[in-house]
Amino acid sequence: MKEYTKDKRNRVKRGANRALYDTESVHKILDANFMGYVGYVYDGYPITIPMAYGKKDDKIYIHGSTANRMLTSILENEKISMTVMNLDGLVLARSGFHHSVNYRSATLFGNLKKVENDKEKTDILENIVNHMVKDRWDSLRPMNQQELDRTLVAEFTIETASAKVRAEGVGDEPEDYKEEVWAGIVPIKQIAEYPIADKGLPQKMDIPKHVLDYYQQNK
Amino acid sequence: MKEYTKDKRNRVKRGANRALYDTESVHKILDANFMGYVGYVYDGYPITIPMAYGKKDDKIYIHGSTANRMLTSILENEKISMTVMNLDGLVLARSGFHHSVNYRSATLFGNLKKVENDKEKTDILENIVNHMVKDRWDSLRPMNQQELDRTLVAEFTIETASAKVRAEGVGDEPEDYKEEVWAGIVPIKQIAEYPIADKGLPQKMDIPKHVLDYYQQNK
Repeated sequence: MKEYTKDKRNRVKRGANRALYDTESVHKILDANFMGYVGYVYDGYPITIPMAYGKKDDKIYIHGSTANRMLTSILENEKISMTVMNLDGLVLARSGFHHSVNYRSATLFGNLKKVENDKEKTDILENIVNHMVKDRWDSLRPMNQQELDRTLVAEFTIETASAKVRAEGVGDEPEDYKEEVWAGIVPIKQIAEYPIADKGLPQKMDIPKHVLDYYQQNK
Repeated sequence: MKEYTKDKRNRVKRGANRALYDTESVHKILDANFMGYVGYVYDGYPITIPMAYGKKDDKIYIHGSTANRMLTSILENEKISMTVMNLDGLVLARSGFHHSVNYRSATLFGNLKKVENDKEKTDILENIVNHMVKDRWDSLRPMNQQELDRTLVAEFTIETASAKVRAEGVGDEPEDYKEEVWAGIVPIKQIAEYPIADKGLPQKMDIPKHVLDYYQQNK
């Protein structure tokens, strides 16, 4: 099993029994999502921005407008992190103390670099769009040069990472099981509702397979 | 309309037309969620941790174990931020360039202080549990002293904040509306599934109203 190196950035300090350092567990969480929380330091302040991402092997891709001073500032930063989480349920215990949530989260640390080559940029934008909705890119009007020029693309190399997962029932104190308190799990999930066609031609078209597939897999 | 002060931390630099600085918009997003992404700087590295929160007026409450070195480290930090987001939909445009998501996000900046008083701590833990599931606290076995001693409670005062909201249809280039590309919105939401009773007494009990209410409001 391939594992990420443990250092002071990714070592899980609390609930270490829920920590996972193997690359497979981390990538499973990254594959199940397309929005991550990118953390960076701006003038001494920690700032967290939700961003869509793509991925390939140990690279994570983000993008934004070249007019985006935030992304420019992230690129000047040597140190960034990204956190991705699925909330899977509420854990309602018999005591307040043991209330919790079920979740899968991954935190990545590494460096960002700007991608300059147009072909490489285009491939990465395809990767980001298809990471959101599989097979979407090929149905689209192709990128043009002006759009490419206005798009900043950055590649994040994962230096180290950790995952944390809670996927179990209520864990109450032994003496609390006699209490007449309702305890249990409320499962939580993110779903897609039926796609809504835009005005014009899409209203007369069949919803394409890649969009219906997305809906079916997430409903 | 009461607004947060704009400074370099919260001023939205990209998509400024989607930025909101009024306290009502920010609090509406905070009321619609109970998990936030807390950002802090640890040894120069930006770290983002998902945490459950409670709130009252302009105070946000978080908690953790006193054995939690992460939370202790956050408390030593003068500067923290918190980001909360709802993902509301995929915006599938005719070009890759105009792909986007609909969302509501809020970012808060301020200072954390540790809460020491037992009565105040208990009230805050009640606030956090009830912010997750309304009216839950009164059904629980009360906190005991040992649990209180093992729980670290922190109060975050919002110094400034901003919200960003995208809640609209596809925005394609005028010349792209003739393209035979399916475009539209795929609404996304977080739902609760039917509560699952824990072993023992809860299996014989009716699911209480506060749990059923949570389920009904989120299904």
